[in-house]
Amino acid sequence: MRISTLSIGDELIRGRIVDGNAATIAAALIGQGMRVQRHLTVGDSEPDIMDALADLGRTSDAIIVTGGLGPTVDDLTTHAVARATGRRLVVNEEAREHLHRMMARFGVPPGVQIGEKQAMIPTKTTLIPNPTGTACGFHLMHNGCYQFFMPGVPSEMTVMLHESVIPFLAERDTKRRSIRSLDLNVFGLGEPRVDELLAGIVLPGCGLQLGLCVSFPMIRVTLLAEADSVQGAEEILSRAADAARERLGEHVFSEENQNLAEAAGTLLLRQGMTLALAESCTGGMIAQQITSVAGCSGYFLEGAVTYGNVAKSRRLGVAAELIDGKGAVSSEVAEAMAKGIRASAGSDLGLAVTGIAGPDGGTEEKPVGTVYISLATADGCRTERFLFGRGRDDIRILTTWTALDWIRRYLLQRSAV
Amino acid sequence: MRISTLSIGDELIRGRIVDGNAATIAAALIGQGMRVQRHLTVGDSEPDIMDALADLGRTSDAIIVTGGLGPTVDDLTTHAVARATGRRLVVNEEAREHLHRMMARFGVPPGVQIGEKQAMIPTKTTLIPNPTGTACGFHLMHNGCYQFFMPGVPSEMTVMLHESVIPFLAERDTKRRSIRSLDLNVFGLGEPRVDELLAGIVLPGCGLQLGLCVSFPMIRVTLLAEADSVQGAEEILSRAADAARERLGEHVFSEENQNLAEAAGTLLLRQGMTLALAESCTGGMIAQQITSVAGCSGYFLEGAVTYGNVAKSRRLGVAAELIDGKGAVSSEVAEAMAKGIRASAGSDLGLAVTGIAGPDGGTEEKPVGTVYISLATADGCRTERFLFGRGRDDIRILTTWTALDWIRRYLLQRSAV
Repeated sequence: MRISTLSIGDELIRGRIVDGNAATIAAALIGQGMRVQRHLTVGDSEPDIMDALADLGRTSDAIIVTGGLGPTVDDLTTHAVARATGRRLVVNEEAREHLHRMMARFGVPPGVQIGEKQAMIPTKTTLIPNPTGTACGFHLMHNGCYQFFMPGVPSEMTVMLHESVIPFLAERDTKRRSIRSLDLNVFGLGEPRVDELLAGIVLPGCGLQLGLCVSFPMIRVTLLAEADSVQGAEEILSRAADAARERLGEHVFSEENQNLAEAAGTLLLRQGMTLALAESCTGGMIAQQITSVAGCSGYFLEGAVTYGNVAKSRRLGVAAELIDGKGAVSSEVAEAMAKGIRASAGSDLGLAVTGIAGPDGGTEEKPVGTVYISLATADGCRTERFLFGRGRDDIRILTTWTALDWIRRYLLQRSAV
Repeated sequence: MRISTLSIGDELIRGRIVDGNAATIAAALIGQGMRVQRHLTVGDSEPDIMDALADLGRTSDAIIVTGGLGPTVDDLTTHAVARATGRRLVVNEEAREHLHRMMARFGVPPGVQIGEKQAMIPTKTTLIPNPTGTACGFHLMHNGCYQFFMPGVPSEMTVMLHESVIPFLAERDTKRRSIRSLDLNVFGLGEPRVDELLAGIVLPGCGLQLGLCVSFPMIRVTLLAEADSVQGAEEILSRAADAARERLGEHVFSEENQNLAEAAGTLLLRQGMTLALAESCTGGMIAQQITSVAGCSGYFLEGAVTYGNVAKSRRLGVAAELIDGKGAVSSEVAEAMAKGIRASAGSDLGLAVTGIAGPDGGTEEKPVGTVYISLATADGCRTERFLFGRGRDDIRILTTWTALDWIRRYLLQRSAV
């Protein structure tokens, strides 16, 4: 089945926002053994939308359209569809009821009138339910081409895609092959190194595709197996996954699309260990990541964002003389911070970071990007110096991820003993 | 001039990465009074690329193409262009010299051979210099349509776009009008309310366009003025900006594309005030935002991420009886946290948040999303209860932004007195 996608919106064609929907749809289809052949974006202009539908219709068996179903006058998709396919635009009772039900649930702000616009649907179409938003979608068949229309709001679109559009297409795409895929989330290796380690896993004609996607600072390795049967695809995938796991080792922190904080949190919870944090240069980013995980109160006790030196002394008991003598960014101070937060919080793990995120504050001896990470546990205290690059944001992110990875690896090794 | 963009790449059409280049190009053109009419994406397939060039060529005066100029065999753009436009593919000496010069500068990894592929350029084309990468771009004229080809690497593409492509087009687009634009960053109003407040600012034919872009939890209001002269555009923009400022009032937190932490930080620095934070449900997110701003050590003293109740008592001096009696999520505890962190840190402002981010922990009286924010200053202590919706992440983000906005508004009012 030849499938195209069409994104509609002035904010897209003017470059005010980046089009994430196109990628979401393409990736979701791949997972079901279907492919997007062509993606098109046009603005909120009736002739442009009509031209786009006509052009894509000539070379596609299905078009998945997002955007332009909003409540304001510049949302023109339904008008354009009605004209392009020779349908009338009428109030759809089901869509109208849905609209009012959702507005009631969200709470209509005072003074706002509920328009009927989002209930105006071309005739001879089938509604696509939108469980999380006000505007129903719809689909129709025109000149032998399925056309699906959904709102551009990514969260709403994604639900509708998975619940309605993909099942509909999967049922009708008889040439679809069986696909099985696995994502390995990797941290601590550069892209060229991952590429090198995985060399030779994909042989021509073996039905396997390998994708590396850098999502800084991690890399997502996608293994995609394709075969005539589900069992065949599973066998190909299983062999490839074993090989990839062996080559990448502990650098793989999740196979369930967890982030590093979730992976560390899962281990903390499983081992019944508690954590407290002392952060300087990351300024709360590690705590923010840890607490982004629901249920983190089961292992996270507290964090101290000791940005200034006074706070380091008062909150963590780091001796002022030590800071004066060795500098706030030093191995000794990092260790004192880790031990200090562990002792005062009474946690099993005490993790501390101190560094120079820049742009100012670097010296020849300790340039911008110099970071010390220290982890205090019942097994002792480990402290290391790092030099991270590429600006304030990246230095903070790399420090945060490396610190979280230390927690994960410590717990892995502990459970292996 | 009718301009289209074309992105080429399997990783795009399979949804492995999101296409940022399309937005970059569109936004850059808008700034120069030019518009993208249509954007197309296809994979690394010779027939698909040829079809795309032919289709876009029929309706465009210029096509800006990115991607598919890499060194590997699956990069097919130059082949497709040569076939589509009836040109031969030859080694371009200038491109070859550039390739070798850049490889020498970057350092060739051991075992890697420099191929000539990136120096193969169709005949009868003009090179587009690539100051930061190995592959030169090129442009040509075919059937009355300018076609520009650049690598897909965003950093390389952006330089080439601004240094070569846009100046070339600007010189030839005689119908280009003068454009001036302004972004107003707005927080604390929903999109329908902003829409309503700005109603009537844009009159038909007045040369002004208004764009609202929701970038949760803020809204970016873009005013874009278009006229025959720079002065004309500036006058239109100035009038519109005055009207928008008056209607949106203090909800506008930046006109220089600052985020809320930067806006608050600028005021703190200017007024010589210091800040300390006590966070429960946000778990360090406020501190992380504050410390994302370079130079924040000039006003930020410290933050306490007091996730557990023990930490609230020990770090902030919140009485255990108060927590037992009123609950950790209560007006009284929020106030005690704010006063506690202000007193112990010795800061001018003490800001505290406590709430239920969910998914668990809600009660009938205090459902998930219930948040108390408290700001303690020399002028007293202000505490308010909020009910934020839509899941753990959004609740934490809305709490963080609202807290930062409190700091900003307090300082604004203080300086107005």
